[in-house]
Amino acid sequence: MRASHFFFPTLREAPADAEMRSYALLARGAFIRKLAAGVYSFMPLGLRVLLKIQTIVREEMNRQGAIEIELPVISPAELWKESGRYEAYQPPLAKFRDLAGREFVLGPTHEEIVTDLVRHSIHSYKQLPVNLYQIQTKFRDELRPRAGLIRAREFIMKDAYSFDANRAGLGVSFDKMYTAYCAIFDRCGLPYVIVEAEGGSIGGTDTNEFMVVCAAGEDTIMRCDGCGYAVNVEKAGLRLPAPSGSGSGEEELRKVATPAMKTVEQVTAFLKVEASQLVKTLLFKSDDQVVAALIRGDRELNEFKLKQALGGAEVGMADADTVLRVTGAPVGFAGPIGLQSVRLLLDQEITAMTNFVTGANEADAHFVNVNPGRDFVATEVADLRNAVDGDHCGQCDSGRYRATRGIEVGHIFKLGTKYSAAMNATFQDENGEVQPFIMGCYGIGVSRVLAAIAEMHNDEKGLCWPDAVAPFEVTLLLLDNNDASLRGQADRLYDELTQAGHEVFYDDRNERAGVKFSDADLIGIPYQVVIGKRTRESGEVEVRRRRDKTQTVAKLNAVADALAGLRNG
Amino acid sequence: MRASHFFFPTLREAPADAEMRSYALLARGAFIRKLAAGVYSFMPLGLRVLLKIQTIVREEMNRQGAIEIELPVISPAELWKESGRYEAYQPPLAKFRDLAGREFVLGPTHEEIVTDLVRHSIHSYKQLPVNLYQIQTKFRDELRPRAGLIRAREFIMKDAYSFDANRAGLGVSFDKMYTAYCAIFDRCGLPYVIVEAEGGSIGGTDTNEFMVVCAAGEDTIMRCDGCGYAVNVEKAGLRLPAPSGSGSGEEELRKVATPAMKTVEQVTAFLKVEASQLVKTLLFKSDDQVVAALIRGDRELNEFKLKQALGGAEVGMADADTVLRVTGAPVGFAGPIGLQSVRLLLDQEITAMTNFVTGANEADAHFVNVNPGRDFVATEVADLRNAVDGDHCGQCDSGRYRATRGIEVGHIFKLGTKYSAAMNATFQDENGEVQPFIMGCYGIGVSRVLAAIAEMHNDEKGLCWPDAVAPFEVTLLLLDNNDASLRGQADRLYDELTQAGHEVFYDDRNERAGVKFSDADLIGIPYQVVIGKRTRESGEVEVRRRRDKTQTVAKLNAVADALAGLRNG
Repeated sequence: MRASHFFFPTLREAPADAEMRSYALLARGAFIRKLAAGVYSFMPLGLRVLLKIQTIVREEMNRQGAIEIELPVISPAELWKESGRYEAYQPPLAKFRDLAGREFVLGPTHEEIVTDLVRHSIHSYKQLPVNLYQIQTKFRDELRPRAGLIRAREFIMKDAYSFDANRAGLGVSFDKMYTAYCAIFDRCGLPYVIVEAEGGSIGGTDTNEFMVVCAAGEDTIMRCDGCGYAVNVEKAGLRLPAPSGSGSGEEELRKVATPAMKTVEQVTAFLKVEASQLVKTLLFKSDDQVVAALIRGDRELNEFKLKQALGGAEVGMADADTVLRVTGAPVGFAGPIGLQSVRLLLDQEITAMTNFVTGANEADAHFVNVNPGRDFVATEVADLRNAVDGDHCGQCDSGRYRATRGIEVGHIFKLGTKYSAAMNATFQDENGEVQPFIMGCYGIGVSRVLAAIAEMHNDEKGLCWPDAVAPFEVTLLLLDNNDASLRGQADRLYDELTQAGHEVFYDDRNERAGVKFSDADLIGIPYQVVIGKRTRESGEVEVRRRRDKTQTVAKLNAVADALAGLRNG
Repeated sequence: MRASHFFFPTLREAPADAEMRSYALLARGAFIRKLAAGVYSFMPLGLRVLLKIQTIVREEMNRQGAIEIELPVISPAELWKESGRYEAYQPPLAKFRDLAGREFVLGPTHEEIVTDLVRHSIHSYKQLPVNLYQIQTKFRDELRPRAGLIRAREFIMKDAYSFDANRAGLGVSFDKMYTAYCAIFDRCGLPYVIVEAEGGSIGGTDTNEFMVVCAAGEDTIMRCDGCGYAVNVEKAGLRLPAPSGSGSGEEELRKVATPAMKTVEQVTAFLKVEASQLVKTLLFKSDDQVVAALIRGDRELNEFKLKQALGGAEVGMADADTVLRVTGAPVGFAGPIGLQSVRLLLDQEITAMTNFVTGANEADAHFVNVNPGRDFVATEVADLRNAVDGDHCGQCDSGRYRATRGIEVGHIFKLGTKYSAAMNATFQDENGEVQPFIMGCYGIGVSRVLAAIAEMHNDEKGLCWPDAVAPFEVTLLLLDNNDASLRGQADRLYDELTQAGHEVFYDDRNERAGVKFSDADLIGIPYQVVIGKRTRESGEVEVRRRRDKTQTVAKLNAVADALAGLRNG
């Protein structure tokens, strides 16, 4: 490709909203352009990378026997109503009505659609297993899109759905995807860890996330320094603390005035105690019940854990009216003492605490020196809070969690019969019995992978694409366009390398050498061939590796060998 | 690919709504599946064909210097408001609001989006020309989708947009796309004619459609048997008829009672005259004016021609109130005699008519023996009607139009400054002057091309894909799965052919030979290799060409040669 005929309007400055390095570099290097919040165009360079990632994904999916299809971007509301996700999906689905008034959805994922396809196509165990995948544009209406392609609203996803006759089959299908995902991320040059995770809006039991460890990531990963267990913080179970000496040093319960002090910060500042000496009483509604969850003032409640403690029921924050009705006080003053007809869940950590502060279920008042057992009795004790760095791992006896940040690039789920049962998608088994399909689903954020690669492969001058996904293999820089002889040599070298199958980006623009070098470093094509002064003097070119500036010198007819040397060196 | 591991649920019966042969065969052969009206999933076989067509499109677009990008599927309403198409686009745009309440559009085309991209990226004539294309899923909300992929609502489009500094440059860009389109359709095995056409919702002046001539097509093409001119009926101009001997044989004007006779059919049946002896007076509103268009009773008004006769103004049917106000009569009795303060346009054909019937501008009455000039005077005479088979060509002196049907697979437009002027998309020219970009746009309905190929290449048994776009190159049919020796030979042949680079679809299913043959013929892979009785007896296989059943016999180790022979034969 001749740069003079290409479209790559690089920018001097990163966009004002580029808080992430990958987005800044992808925008400056003309790989992507923002059209609206969370909606990006792929420019020619970005699309070339994207298509290479897609090819890798296809090859590894096909290698594991998955079969490519392409489902529609829009889907009828009826299917989402059948599964129960039309209203429940989070974030809420993007919906529109067609001219005939029928409701449609912009698909953020395609469990319903593929389940509908398979229930109309497969009727016997003899046709199983099957694993169908697609690479498709999807839409997920994040209220706060950020970080460029990492959390975009319109994005490109590889989603796969396996259908098996039994759980053992699902295990095999799941393991094949695990293998495929490892191969895909390896080939893309992405270092990753595989962590246990929650299913979220997708559902399912066993789920694994593929995380690129990276300080700018949006997810928190807990890794145990003892047993090596890795888990998304959403799912990180904690070991029960050693029981405290019950009753030792308990002081007298006192009610204190806390006028208009509603938040943990306000109350602890006012009472001059640490947040770790306060216990928050958080009220939820679950089915027709009100639930109070008690956790330490400096902890975050984990809604997945709360939901699990409640046997899987849906949970939502209680509104102010409910709080007033149940506690007799406005929001901000709830506490466990005297709370009636409420299911009281105690985070396990609190069983080891004494003499803490809680709300008093009356406006402008808190209790101090509260002690569980003596002052109130919990309905049950459970693991309810988010793990933090240094917490005791829930999987072993001695290790502690170490928190790191990660970008989720892949996610594999054992769905079981969640969708097939809801949508009556069944087959006849070997005994002639009708059974729901046993499903799995498997996603890779293809456009997010592109951004994650950019995040992991750059330096102060720009991007440094791994060979396998680079937009071109080599940049040919002609430093002096006015030297006809040099230009002729560059033209010939471009033709020769291109005809030999190399993907060459030939910077033949009528620009200064400095501009060409800085664009080449910004765009980050892995190898650079420089035709300049040395070529004029000795007929040699400089051949460089972008990522570490390793450089060799080669005769004009030996450039391909020099490139091969650098690639393997 | 082993059929036993593939997903291709063929159907015995075509879907009930399959009025077109291509849709019936694509559905039966498991190439596509309907999800909703006008919304289809690509099944594995269909996607393979689609990807091959896309590769051909890419190669030919790249060969002409076009550069691939990928714009978002959704776009913000503001851009459509800037161009004036937010409300005006036909059929109406599919719109939705995101969670933050911002209006978005599902793009049916991308002039606005690419113009926005380029106005932010290109500032100088030195960066021109550029031609950006994409292959993308689009949505166009047809009220009556039909004919499978031919008129789908969600479809895959290749759209390209050229930006030039002047009209001469646009001519070059346009000609390159013309060349690319010819190459693409040739390679896809589609016979086509190139016709002049109207711009529709896209706009532009010079536009050409690439039409696949086919009885089931939705468009009518007029081809002159004299000069060879080809044109969409929407744009087919007509030669002025020879002037009639004015005044000769004019009979006396009479008013006749036509009680409740409002339609052409009713009036002509009642008066016992041919529809060609009646003249319809059709009333329109254009700006603040009422316009009457007079055309022969058996003709169709051409709204593009009417609009052109009115200098390009928008035109809409007059409502019943307006008709009553202007004519003094209800709808159905309008006529030219005595019509006041109305612009009266006469289709040129009527200047050669005498003694015809018109409405009398009074309820339940018509005039007979109406003659132009004597009884009324037209404001102007123009070509207002749709051409029909046998009409005089508007481009030459002697030829007549012959009507055929066609499927529009490509459309190229010279847009000029329609979008760049509306959206203030400008560059600096060589003299430092700010100029709007001179644009062209170029579309191929990629999924429609797939259907058009299916429509043109089939027989009573199924599809007959051209080699270049076939889902696989060769079907290997193992006729007896129970014969272990035969099976071993088939397995080996499959491995050998696959390793030699052939795309083999190996029907290793545990099915009867009859099922395998009928599926193979239905799916229409171009070559069939049969391992059966003859193989058992003599170690030979039958090698057939699907489309004409030409057959050769080859030793097991000479199948590749036999295939090459058939391909070139």
